[in-house]
Amino acid sequence: MKLLTYKTTTSEPRLGFLHNDHIVDMEDFGEALNFPLPSTMLELIDMGIEIIPEINDFLADIDEETLNEVSYSFEETTLLAPIPKPRKNIIGIGLNYTEHVAESARTLDTTGKLPQKPIIFSKPPTAVVGTNENIFLNKKLTQQLDWEVELAVIIGKKGKYVSKENAMDYVFGYTIINDISARDCRREGQWIVSKGQDTFAPMGPYIVTADEIENPHNLNLSLKLNGIEKQNSNTQFLLFNINDLIEDLSTVFTIEPGDIIATGTPAGVGAGREPQEWMWDGDVVEATIEGIGTIVNTIKEI
Amino acid sequence: MKLLTYKTTTSEPRLGFLHNDHIVDMEDFGEALNFPLPSTMLELIDMGIEIIPEINDFLADIDEETLNEVSYSFEETTLLAPIPKPRKNIIGIGLNYTEHVAESARTLDTTGKLPQKPIIFSKPPTAVVGTNENIFLNKKLTQQLDWEVELAVIIGKKGKYVSKENAMDYVFGYTIINDISARDCRREGQWIVSKGQDTFAPMGPYIVTADEIENPHNLNLSLKLNGIEKQNSNTQFLLFNINDLIEDLSTVFTIEPGDIIATGTPAGVGAGREPQEWMWDGDVVEATIEGIGTIVNTIKEI
Repeated sequence: MKLLTYKTTTSEPRLGFLHNDHIVDMEDFGEALNFPLPSTMLELIDMGIEIIPEINDFLADIDEETLNEVSYSFEETTLLAPIPKPRKNIIGIGLNYTEHVAESARTLDTTGKLPQKPIIFSKPPTAVVGTNENIFLNKKLTQQLDWEVELAVIIGKKGKYVSKENAMDYVFGYTIINDISARDCRREGQWIVSKGQDTFAPMGPYIVTADEIENPHNLNLSLKLNGIEKQNSNTQFLLFNINDLIEDLSTVFTIEPGDIIATGTPAGVGAGREPQEWMWDGDVVEATIEGIGTIVNTIKEI
Repeated sequence: MKLLTYKTTTSEPRLGFLHNDHIVDMEDFGEALNFPLPSTMLELIDMGIEIIPEINDFLADIDEETLNEVSYSFEETTLLAPIPKPRKNIIGIGLNYTEHVAESARTLDTTGKLPQKPIIFSKPPTAVVGTNENIFLNKKLTQQLDWEVELAVIIGKKGKYVSKENAMDYVFGYTIINDISARDCRREGQWIVSKGQDTFAPMGPYIVTADEIENPHNLNLSLKLNGIEKQNSNTQFLLFNINDLIEDLSTVFTIEPGDIIATGTPAGVGAGREPQEWMWDGDVVEATIEGIGTIVNTIKEI
């Protein structure tokens, strides 16, 4: 199931899902079936991943006319980030693909050694935007605006000390995050100013539920800037895979429904290129992951 | 006004305030006056700082009998962190007192140069505990559990590009945070694992509203471990004061009601002592700030 958050010209942000190239409103779909379903993504995640097969069963049974009554065409709606307002900062993982560790050490302030444990940072909820929204470039803050396509994992269940073996039980689904990074905004090594500015976490276009991703560790991910490919790799090359990350993170923090883990970016970022490349006003950046989709954002100088 | 979150043996966490050594339930107080008031701290903060003088006016007028009906003694209640579940990660400021910059450079991995801009990190909502709750020591993760008393600023109003001159208009109130830090949990320089573990953000006991703190830049702050003073300074020695921090942070992120800024700790942390000192099972740590109160926490090995 491809879950999404959308709005119409008159509505608040609402939860929907993709079906036959249309957007079905989740709450209205539930009302049509006398089965209460929520109007926001976080409420659905709180219901647990077990709700998804039930919704799929209802979808198989519903008649076309009723479904049309609770559906919109893409033209009638605007897609937002699937979780427009996360409950806490997004958990980011740094230096989680070998070649990105190497390119970062060449040009940034990191050591080049493969990390022994996941490198963790955070991006605040105020950084989230959806596909087709702008990424703001404030030249007073940065002259080094960079891109990073990443597979993001959405947590579906509260947990502490989760083992690698059980980690996948805690995954609700997957989405794409472009982990926008202003390389010259690091402060005493801390990354949150570099990575946490407003609009620096484009996310979406959908949360694909875990049951529809056969193997999250074999997904192509790529990124284009103004149509030219800059990153192209596969999640099989993650240094710490999703199971490792959930085990480690849940040892440190209690993980909770709606938590978002951006699993790190492969090689090909602007900082690692010779000469280095940065994004400027009007540039269009497209981040794509197999089985999830593409998010497209335009840089806007402010 | 000293605002707090409490529970009784039978209640959910609820908003209250301190009056004549009793806890007055905010929602019940409002009901007694036919003036709707909320049951949680975040809802009150969302109403804006302007609500505080109104509540004080009601308090001046209410008869004693009615007040008693909506009040509890301390014995009947348990204090919780004033914001038990912040909406996003706490914003932490590192290296914000000169002598702490020096002691950190001697013993940790920081440079010793005075920062040119605030050093920002984050602590997740899952790290928050209240006074009298335990701080967990997991020896598999750390052998270097340290203390840091800090003045925390509670934001009351949404803002972006706030100037120093207007910064105080965005302050709802103040509380204490003990910025617990596992010094050996830094990863590639990032501090979130060191500072973000469950229970690593003791907060409280009250949020003192801004109108009751005459000068937040002249408050003594101190910390005792097992009754022995380890830190003792004054907020007048902040490198970046509250106005500076709000200007800088709001340039990077949109600040929002309920945001919490932990403004940094003075000298005297365990890492900076010779020999270094750490906290162990059963140790009692007390963090005090003039005009706010004291939070007391006991270390518990898990």
